[in-house]
Amino acid sequence: MIQFEHRPGILDLSWGHPRPGLLPVEEWAAATATAAREFGWRQLTYGYPTGPAPLLEWLTAHLNAIEDGGAEARQLFVTAGASHGMALAASLLAGPGDVILVDSPTYHLAFRILADTGATLLRAPADADGVDPAALAGLLATLRAEGRRVPLLYLVPTFANPTGRSLPLDRRRDLVSLAQRSGLTLLEDDTYRELTYDGEAPPSLWRLSGGEGVVRLGSFAKTVAPGLRLGWINAAPALIARLATLGYVHSGGGVNHAVATTMSCFGASGAYDRHVATVRAEYRTQRDALVAALRPHLPVAAPAGGWFLWAALPPGLSATRLLPEAERRGTSFAPGPLFYADGNGGEDRIRLSFSHLTPAHLTTAANRLGAALAP
Amino acid sequence: MIQFEHRPGILDLSWGHPRPGLLPVEEWAAATATAAREFGWRQLTYGYPTGPAPLLEWLTAHLNAIEDGGAEARQLFVTAGASHGMALAASLLAGPGDVILVDSPTYHLAFRILADTGATLLRAPADADGVDPAALAGLLATLRAEGRRVPLLYLVPTFANPTGRSLPLDRRRDLVSLAQRSGLTLLEDDTYRELTYDGEAPPSLWRLSGGEGVVRLGSFAKTVAPGLRLGWINAAPALIARLATLGYVHSGGGVNHAVATTMSCFGASGAYDRHVATVRAEYRTQRDALVAALRPHLPVAAPAGGWFLWAALPPGLSATRLLPEAERRGTSFAPGPLFYADGNGGEDRIRLSFSHLTPAHLTTAANRLGAALAP
Repeated sequence: MIQFEHRPGILDLSWGHPRPGLLPVEEWAAATATAAREFGWRQLTYGYPTGPAPLLEWLTAHLNAIEDGGAEARQLFVTAGASHGMALAASLLAGPGDVILVDSPTYHLAFRILADTGATLLRAPADADGVDPAALAGLLATLRAEGRRVPLLYLVPTFANPTGRSLPLDRRRDLVSLAQRSGLTLLEDDTYRELTYDGEAPPSLWRLSGGEGVVRLGSFAKTVAPGLRLGWINAAPALIARLATLGYVHSGGGVNHAVATTMSCFGASGAYDRHVATVRAEYRTQRDALVAALRPHLPVAAPAGGWFLWAALPPGLSATRLLPEAERRGTSFAPGPLFYADGNGGEDRIRLSFSHLTPAHLTTAANRLGAALAP
Repeated sequence: MIQFEHRPGILDLSWGHPRPGLLPVEEWAAATATAAREFGWRQLTYGYPTGPAPLLEWLTAHLNAIEDGGAEARQLFVTAGASHGMALAASLLAGPGDVILVDSPTYHLAFRILADTGATLLRAPADADGVDPAALAGLLATLRAEGRRVPLLYLVPTFANPTGRSLPLDRRRDLVSLAQRSGLTLLEDDTYRELTYDGEAPPSLWRLSGGEGVVRLGSFAKTVAPGLRLGWINAAPALIARLATLGYVHSGGGVNHAVATTMSCFGASGAYDRHVATVRAEYRTQRDALVAALRPHLPVAAPAGGWFLWAALPPGLSATRLLPEAERRGTSFAPGPLFYADGNGGEDRIRLSFSHLTPAHLTTAANRLGAALAP
């Protein structure tokens, strides 16, 4: 029925899924009842292509509340999740023969979505702080001198998957400026923005760009529930118009209309804000539990947001070789090389998700990992 | 908020949308409450890629109940509506440079979905009975001799949009046999199958094919509600596997998981069967009202299923020229040329939808059309 089931005996740190106990079953059921009462048949017929007005209104206000200058309604297209949004945006912006640049390391399941356009993926130059704008300008110039079209750069600049890090502000500015100068579109996966545990999230590339040169992917998967398959795209109105006139949207209307109208009730009732406050506190506790339990075994830094720790292994240890040993001890993780588009890199790193397990289970999992690491 | 709002003063026969009063607002709200109770957090996390088991089980049983040998679970992929399914299947089977053949006339909003693959659309040979398999074999041979790849033929063989007609049984058999011999995939839009008013629907191409050479698109839009954005694809297991490993599905899991699990409750409770029986009776009444009111003005035949009348205009009248006259009188319709991929044909035909209005409004609309037709 669902995408992932725990294997017996394994406390798995490899999946970036929400903890089941944090999913708002009752609150969502209440919102569905409200939506049925409030919208009646209008929730069940073909929806407006860019999304139902009540959600566009609430979401616009919400995006502006969490970040000044967040978005206007004409810069919004409601999607059936961030992955769906990524597939739609990439299909409009890139195609066979093109080059799509991707951060390294970055969200590994994006690679296949982007490659489904027929484009070739190449690693953007990056160091420990993330994408390096100066080196990127050089690579862009080289590729274009070779006659390659390079329409897109994909990255998760805020509380990144897998590293938990955020791109420094000066690099954000330089990246946006480079994108606007060079006609490169930054595909900003901003799905972790609201999961912040130690203060404010940095400004989005989207906001810094003033709406040109950046397409931002948003999602309700982390803040509410992934099974809803609901998210949004922020983009310039011209791209929003192209999304709305895709054949499939033109025919079927709003791509997830009934759920989108329910979300407008979930938002307007205050349930969204309450729920985000709850999960933020809970994920902070989970983060702290995992970091504390790992520290005797691994030198990990606590990320300021998101769902992931990106841990460096002791010298000489390989993530790929450690994995079966960890699983024999009853835990698991995502090995570093997964997160490099060419599989080349990250052998000394592992991604540990603190989203999926209780603090007690995270502690046990960390101890098992520690045992696997022991010489 | 929604895709279509009536223009003031116009009783519109052009849109193939359900009548608002027939949308199951209370029954669907009851199913959402049941699903929350029954599935809890499992409804809100990432879903199984091909669809949640409870829906696959109910839907398999249902498809076999309405048509012997309907489908196996391994031949099912749950989609976010038939348009979404069409876009996904077409993106896997066709691409730039290919030719996609389409019935003439046929569902006009499919054209853009199919063209979004980058393929060129060409009309398949058809006469008053629908696609002509012998002439199609000739066209296929010619195109392939020219070096064209022709992977797909799109058609609505049962209670078609816009004609209401169904392809005769011998042509169904010949088409399937031609497809299997020639490696052409028939993309069968089977979304009207359960809206049958005068006895049984003819066997689907999918069933006649034994599951090879046909991809069938199913939908809950007409039988339950379009705003849910829920449907399915029937295809050979190899294609189902390709759908499930699309980057976007691999990343996000089941494409409309929460709604799909709710539909399993709607089905299992008997609400689906009751609702289809209700709408079948109501749409039959609506059909009869429109046919009866039109007959003094136009020689129309009552279709045995679906949502549409395909009326021939009196000699010398043009659909395009009639349209502003009809709108001045307070009604509207879809002019015939819309339904031809090359816009070439159908000037003597109009499509009238009886799905959207009450019998009383349909009668009024028909009288207004009659007035527009009067010399």
